[in-house]
Amino acid sequence: MTESLKIGLLGHGTVGGAFDELVGGRKEAIESAIGRPAVISGVLTTSIGDFDEILAASDVIVELMGGTDTARDHVLASLRAGKPVITANKQLLAQHGAELFAVASESGVQLRFEAAIAAVVPVVRVVQESFGAVEFTKVSGIVNGTTNFILSEMAATGASYEDTLARAQELGYAEADPTDDVNGADAAAKMAILARLAFHTPVTLDQVDFEGIESVQPDDLAYAKELGLSLKLLGVAERLADGITVRVFPCFLYGGHPLSPIEGPFNAVTVEAPEITEVTISGPGAGGVQTASAVLGDLVSVVTGDAPTHKVQNDLPVLTDVTSSFYLHLEVADEPGVLAQVAKVLSDGGVSVKSVVQKGMGDDARLVMVVHRCLESKFKSAIEEIGRLDSLRSAPRFIRVIEEEFV
Amino acid sequence: MTESLKIGLLGHGTVGGAFDELVGGRKEAIESAIGRPAVISGVLTTSIGDFDEILAASDVIVELMGGTDTARDHVLASLRAGKPVITANKQLLAQHGAELFAVASESGVQLRFEAAIAAVVPVVRVVQESFGAVEFTKVSGIVNGTTNFILSEMAATGASYEDTLARAQELGYAEADPTDDVNGADAAAKMAILARLAFHTPVTLDQVDFEGIESVQPDDLAYAKELGLSLKLLGVAERLADGITVRVFPCFLYGGHPLSPIEGPFNAVTVEAPEITEVTISGPGAGGVQTASAVLGDLVSVVTGDAPTHKVQNDLPVLTDVTSSFYLHLEVADEPGVLAQVAKVLSDGGVSVKSVVQKGMGDDARLVMVVHRCLESKFKSAIEEIGRLDSLRSAPRFIRVIEEEFV
Repeated sequence: MTESLKIGLLGHGTVGGAFDELVGGRKEAIESAIGRPAVISGVLTTSIGDFDEILAASDVIVELMGGTDTARDHVLASLRAGKPVITANKQLLAQHGAELFAVASESGVQLRFEAAIAAVVPVVRVVQESFGAVEFTKVSGIVNGTTNFILSEMAATGASYEDTLARAQELGYAEADPTDDVNGADAAAKMAILARLAFHTPVTLDQVDFEGIESVQPDDLAYAKELGLSLKLLGVAERLADGITVRVFPCFLYGGHPLSPIEGPFNAVTVEAPEITEVTISGPGAGGVQTASAVLGDLVSVVTGDAPTHKVQNDLPVLTDVTSSFYLHLEVADEPGVLAQVAKVLSDGGVSVKSVVQKGMGDDARLVMVVHRCLESKFKSAIEEIGRLDSLRSAPRFIRVIEEEFV
Repeated sequence: MTESLKIGLLGHGTVGGAFDELVGGRKEAIESAIGRPAVISGVLTTSIGDFDEILAASDVIVELMGGTDTARDHVLASLRAGKPVITANKQLLAQHGAELFAVASESGVQLRFEAAIAAVVPVVRVVQESFGAVEFTKVSGIVNGTTNFILSEMAATGASYEDTLARAQELGYAEADPTDDVNGADAAAKMAILARLAFHTPVTLDQVDFEGIESVQPDDLAYAKELGLSLKLLGVAERLADGITVRVFPCFLYGGHPLSPIEGPFNAVTVEAPEITEVTISGPGAGGVQTASAVLGDLVSVVTGDAPTHKVQNDLPVLTDVTSSFYLHLEVADEPGVLAQVAKVLSDGGVSVKSVVQKGMGDDARLVMVVHRCLESKFKSAIEEIGRLDSLRSAPRFIRVIEEEFV
């Protein structure tokens, strides 16, 4: 009789419970995929189970408990004991990745984490395995489903950010405390991991600049629709001449961009390199059973293959002042000379205007501009000065624009 | 000193040459990915090289020669000699898959073929490894770049099929003899392989029904645009209650379908199952260096992991008479009673009309209809009868329609 694969399961919440059910419900498929039966040999929650006993009784540890303290201890102990670990814990990897990868490598044990980024969308495997010898130039992702749902809804309905967030909460697409989703922090953690894998360089969470979607206004989306642009919260990790940049920000995408059609709570990641052009993977970015399916895929692979353990091969500087194109929205006094004032400040600051439209009249007068690619620091100095003009009725608003660059 | 990985390269055309260059040009990345240098130990073409010598001198065989006779002999000999094989040869796998997989399995050797389907788009890995324990319900794909380019161009320009094909040939997106691309045969070979992998069941090429795009008319695309539909040559492998269906046909997709935004020479595949919802992968479906990159990804994996060898686990009947919804385009005489005649034939045949629009007048009078899902055999009998009506000015044209079904 073949011995079963014994799985120690840490955590039994939404994803842990779904994983437990999948292992029970997909018995035959798993046995056929790994060549022997798989069983849950122990479950650890805050109320039941003993970690040391579970570790001793298991061939592989699946960490779905969340948090970064106990989870870190248990994952390190498991790796040191020579037991492969599968985790869906993005914060753990974003904050303690360097340590975890080092210990996995020293111990010669697999650490797999497909579900930590974009749930069931197999971006980790594609980056590490399909394209393991590719030198990526850029990784762009919609890696937070809550914000993509909100932006899609705002674009479709014209409703305000606040109303749409409330609707997302009702539908279960946003948590009661949505802070880490809407301010970009969740996406930043995922991009830190992705940038590390793609560029083989240590990227820490505090090196990722992030902005959220809290200040997006319905008229930004209306303007985007006119121009055939879509608004997305994008994570971008890019290789530049003198380092890399890893950032999360709302931005307008032209209609033909591969991430432009991604709507609702879906996630998607596009990887680029000259020899692959661009490859995009998309799918549901959350959900208990979907996330558990990604964990199950890792489990099969732990048994049947050797995942490459991430190794630092570079130590690339993480740059923050890079170039972007911007959309700029100014609520201005309806009087002659305002455009001239604004144009002079931009021009003096070295920011070149691509297009400008005057919209509305009286108390609704606005200037909507797009400026050419320039260093962000230059743009920000210029709009700081614009913000001090008497003719401004409120603070300037801006959103980055990613224009056509794909073939 | 670590011993190099010795690669025997069969074939040195566009893809073979690009692979040779990649191995030379990406030395460091490959060494870092596989832990030792990789070298081409021998090249076989019609004019140089001896297969037996190359086989003896190689750790792994990369088959990029094409064809199904010599290629089959060499791949079988390599597997039997215990050497892993990587191939990009879809016809070889579609026609001799059963034999090749069986020999790979007996010999305990890896047979990898990511590049055979959709070039650099990592669909084989995702189906076999990420979702190795998932019971797929459906695999849909745009797996031929030539036809997708032609249909995208026809939709954008309104040009005829013949003119657009000529343009595609000029641009290098279509071959001088485009027959196997435009008639669906190339896509059918890829779908035979994908269906085999997804459903673990033997699917042979002759079980795949295929239709091409040769009879698509510009006004079909104009009609699609009005309705927000896109026209694609789709491969669909689906699990039904009493078997599977594997087919290739042009069809209209609603705007929110994940394959709807795929334009130009790109490929994309969507896999579906309840536990993963749907995951879509897209990217360039052809190109020497892109295809060679997929081969390189397989090479890295041959060294670092164990690919699951496809094993037949089911013997599902392949059904051909399944249900579809249809768009029906009739050029009719501009006289009273034609719609009533047509409606009666459809209704007598058990085909239910969803919508009908009368277009044009006089010699341009047409009926454009969409009918509800029905067995294809019923629909085809009905339109055969409609084709015999005196009031028809030309043979009926139809295109399948895939309507909203995703969430």
